[in-house]
Amino acid sequence: MKFLVANDDGIFAPGIKMLAETLAPFGTVAVVGPTEEQSGMGHAITVHRPLRVQAVDVIPQSAKSFTVDGTPADCVKMAVQGLGLTPDIVMAGINLGSNLGTDVLYSGTVSAAMEGVILGIRAIAVSLCGPQTYLSTAGHYVRKILLEDPGILNQPNLIPQDGLLNINIPAVPIEEVKGIRVTRLGVRKYENLFEKRVDPRGNTYFWMGGKPQLTESSDLDIDIVAVEQGYVSITPIQFDLTYHSLVDGLQTILNKEYI
Amino acid sequence: MKFLVANDDGIFAPGIKMLAETLAPFGTVAVVGPTEEQSGMGHAITVHRPLRVQAVDVIPQSAKSFTVDGTPADCVKMAVQGLGLTPDIVMAGINLGSNLGTDVLYSGTVSAAMEGVILGIRAIAVSLCGPQTYLSTAGHYVRKILLEDPGILNQPNLIPQDGLLNINIPAVPIEEVKGIRVTRLGVRKYENLFEKRVDPRGNTYFWMGGKPQLTESSDLDIDIVAVEQGYVSITPIQFDLTYHSLVDGLQTILNKEYI
Repeated sequence: MKFLVANDDGIFAPGIKMLAETLAPFGTVAVVGPTEEQSGMGHAITVHRPLRVQAVDVIPQSAKSFTVDGTPADCVKMAVQGLGLTPDIVMAGINLGSNLGTDVLYSGTVSAAMEGVILGIRAIAVSLCGPQTYLSTAGHYVRKILLEDPGILNQPNLIPQDGLLNINIPAVPIEEVKGIRVTRLGVRKYENLFEKRVDPRGNTYFWMGGKPQLTESSDLDIDIVAVEQGYVSITPIQFDLTYHSLVDGLQTILNKEYI
Repeated sequence: MKFLVANDDGIFAPGIKMLAETLAPFGTVAVVGPTEEQSGMGHAITVHRPLRVQAVDVIPQSAKSFTVDGTPADCVKMAVQGLGLTPDIVMAGINLGSNLGTDVLYSGTVSAAMEGVILGIRAIAVSLCGPQTYLSTAGHYVRKILLEDPGILNQPNLIPQDGLLNINIPAVPIEEVKGIRVTRLGVRKYENLFEKRVDPRGNTYFWMGGKPQLTESSDLDIDIVAVEQGYVSITPIQFDLTYHSLVDGLQTILNKEYI
């Protein structure tokens, strides 16, 4: 199996190395990461300046590894459409920090995977919901859930062609993980999103930050809850944003010729 | 009605001015735009540096107008959560250039509107599928479709609370527009996406560009086709990315305790 590994934390981040190392025994690994950290980039692409690609040698387990001075989506586009790689699967991550609920809209990791889907390649995004200390937990469950028989990658029908799997792994020791839950995306709201400060010259500026509000729900079918309770969450995400159930109703009311 | 107008072409772009002018007779208008053009930014947000807000006076018809040195999503977040505005509706645009099919994933315009939805505010994105020459066509149809009785804004049940309406207007004279079609998102593919060049020092660089492939379909229920045929397309877009129809099936196979 030919893996293309990408991320948004940058080519030198520990998570992309862990992912490449974990995949290496199971196939050929090419790695592409942004030159700089790109968290919060969502599905941004770079259209107003040229992109540069550089071969790098930070991931010994990879057949090929390189960096692009752009966004996570740029990296995957470049690997496939610029450099002509033909991966069987795009693996994005391992992100340090969760990509849960509505936050996936802002996620460079999920967008790197989604770019694979747009290009017709199956894709999986993997995030560790906390600090690097538990990166080995993430590596362990990537191997266990995806790679070792009867892992998801051995059952391609489990990975949609018009969507991706978004996997979030709790940041706890391996033996404290309670299991796997297939989930829906929850809604993530933040308290005190902007912090207003004054610079030394008396001008105001704002930092975006904020604390996620605690979830009131205890529904383990919601990704945020499942991870909070110690489960690995797997959420299927679709690539078609059309609100299909509204189309017919709106057509009856709004379709008009020669307005 | 209190409108918040945002865009991705920047506060000085002609489209945001046209939109504010068109809305002004129908309510109170606040305007927020990025300081610089932000096309292709998708749903990026700025988390690694502070943001600055400046009052500006480029849109005479607005009660308030200001600029944020960030992304389109930053602008809407800042207006609501930083500056405390309480709009009834977020209007994004008028973008110069289409936001059709899978390209909406990269669209700063659609993301500005989506940020409104995340914040619990109804939202509409408007794009003109071509150059500024036909901006008055876009203004005309915004008024006709949304504002004048029985416009969509007078029928709030037509605008979903957990999604938005994405409107694309063909770049033709007003009298050549053939009508309105409620549509689904099509798939947009590009030929020759990357152009490889060599700089004066002999180093390679890539420009992302490419030409959209012509659509083979003639299905007017697809946004790309409808606009090509001279219709205004209105596509409802959902905010929940969960691939719901896959959840049950995957749960049966993958849900496991104590893996």
